[in-house]
Amino acid sequence: MPCKTLLASGIAAKFTEELRSLIAARADGPPTLVGFLANEDPFAAKYAEWTGKTCEETGIKFELRRVDRESLEEAIVDANGDVRVNGIIVYYPVFGDRQDQYLQNVVSPTKDVEGLCHQYCYNMYHNVRFLDEEKQRKCIIPCTPLAIVKVLEHIGVYNSILPYGDRLHGKTVAVINRSEVVGRPLAALLANDGAKVYSVDVNGVQVFSRGPGIALARHKVAEVSEKAEEVLPLCDVVITGVPVESYKVDTSTLKDGVVAVNFSSYRNFPDSIKQKASLYVPSVGKVTVAMLQRNLLRLAEYQHM
Amino acid sequence: MPCKTLLASGIAAKFTEELRSLIAARADGPPTLVGFLANEDPFAAKYAEWTGKTCEETGIKFELRRVDRESLEEAIVDANGDVRVNGIIVYYPVFGDRQDQYLQNVVSPTKDVEGLCHQYCYNMYHNVRFLDEEKQRKCIIPCTPLAIVKVLEHIGVYNSILPYGDRLHGKTVAVINRSEVVGRPLAALLANDGAKVYSVDVNGVQVFSRGPGIALARHKVAEVSEKAEEVLPLCDVVITGVPVESYKVDTSTLKDGVVAVNFSSYRNFPDSIKQKASLYVPSVGKVTVAMLQRNLLRLAEYQHM
Repeated sequence: MPCKTLLASGIAAKFTEELRSLIAARADGPPTLVGFLANEDPFAAKYAEWTGKTCEETGIKFELRRVDRESLEEAIVDANGDVRVNGIIVYYPVFGDRQDQYLQNVVSPTKDVEGLCHQYCYNMYHNVRFLDEEKQRKCIIPCTPLAIVKVLEHIGVYNSILPYGDRLHGKTVAVINRSEVVGRPLAALLANDGAKVYSVDVNGVQVFSRGPGIALARHKVAEVSEKAEEVLPLCDVVITGVPVESYKVDTSTLKDGVVAVNFSSYRNFPDSIKQKASLYVPSVGKVTVAMLQRNLLRLAEYQHM
Repeated sequence: MPCKTLLASGIAAKFTEELRSLIAARADGPPTLVGFLANEDPFAAKYAEWTGKTCEETGIKFELRRVDRESLEEAIVDANGDVRVNGIIVYYPVFGDRQDQYLQNVVSPTKDVEGLCHQYCYNMYHNVRFLDEEKQRKCIIPCTPLAIVKVLEHIGVYNSILPYGDRLHGKTVAVINRSEVVGRPLAALLANDGAKVYSVDVNGVQVFSRGPGIALARHKVAEVSEKAEEVLPLCDVVITGVPVESYKVDTSTLKDGVVAVNFSSYRNFPDSIKQKASLYVPSVGKVTVAMLQRNLLRLAEYQHM
């Protein structure tokens, strides 16, 4: 089988190494990340545990605070104001509804390692890459979409011969999932980098792209009438994040030699993907945690600027 | 029957009159409100039409812009930057999911007549009443919750003998609906004004209050195990906003002489409410539109400060 399977741990390793040396070299000592766990969700608890473990590896001080959800907002406000705290992560879902999106905006942008506050999301959608006019401070990108970009860079989907910002020009990508936390921002990021992106969810297919000749400064979104099975054969890269165990991509619709990346907690690709794909990345979680730490270091640096 | 039924039109009339004379007196001429309609929702279209009609009555220039939803974000950004536009309203739902909450934050706070952007919501939850330290600029409050406050002031539920900010001290209120757009902010507003508020939805009952002796500077939220039918008999005021036709409050659970206010598009109180209530307000929509205009005038004023 010519398909090469790449594990997130291997891809994360170089980032972890880089983080470790950057942190060891800091004049102020290691930065502090505070995590808030305000639910009983087993995935969230596992993610928190995992954050702690990887922070230990790189030297970041990680402090997990368990709070009840009614006290969470106040606890975030306290951490926003505490100079000893460099970064904040909240393990969602908390209320599981729009109140969670409110909470994402309660986290100060100066400490938002997840990149979920409105300012960072807005900049990402609008292809604004720096926080300042002097281009000293790069924007913070949401961790999971950023992790997937890093995975695609690692496995050669981004073409480094092309100018920065256009390195996906010519690539056709499907993103199966259009959640506000991962799928939609990911489709926008990839399209802003030059790809033609089919964003697929249960309601239909949209195209995110910068148009012919990537002439636009940022992506536009258009609804299309094609169905998923009609667009998947056109895609060089298929990225899935469907949060249900029963969902499986029909690999017979994929082009031979496709690049397949799964970011769902469940395996969205069946085993037959190995007969179709040239590269297969079955999960990205470990890269996501590395990106969280990368965002933390960046914010800790900005706090001194 | 001793129950007095008050129509929103009657309550709105004094605000409309006030608005008319304030607008006529403006040195710069009437302010401009831009409404964006990006859906086919009949309620939204009706609300837009209604905004136009009431703006005509008060002298506000209202411009309805129909855009497709994929172009809406850009259209809002353009209006944010256009000095001829004093206020912006978006007729939701647009995408009907979390992307709508993203759009609420795309509207500039300087033009957000609906009061739905994070800054205004945050201030409201935190009982922060001014935008500046000099207390020259009052915060913008979301229109529907503000309309209900004004209704409660009009019908004497707010006790003007008490100090400003504490005028609901001693009142017990139920708010049936805990949506992020109306129910939750309303419960917070009333609790910040001193009430003990039972916030009721299908998932259970929460209490919003500033505690014994309204000692806290802002409300806290606590989950309670009581069911709706156990707390409703304790309430002086029952406010409903359940968006389904079939829902009706069981009036046998209400205390005699209760104040009943409905903000749903459907009648949540059955006719038997008139045997129970002392005051009954079957809808608030017209007051909401008056509050929208009030917010517009306020923002137009701030734009010159």
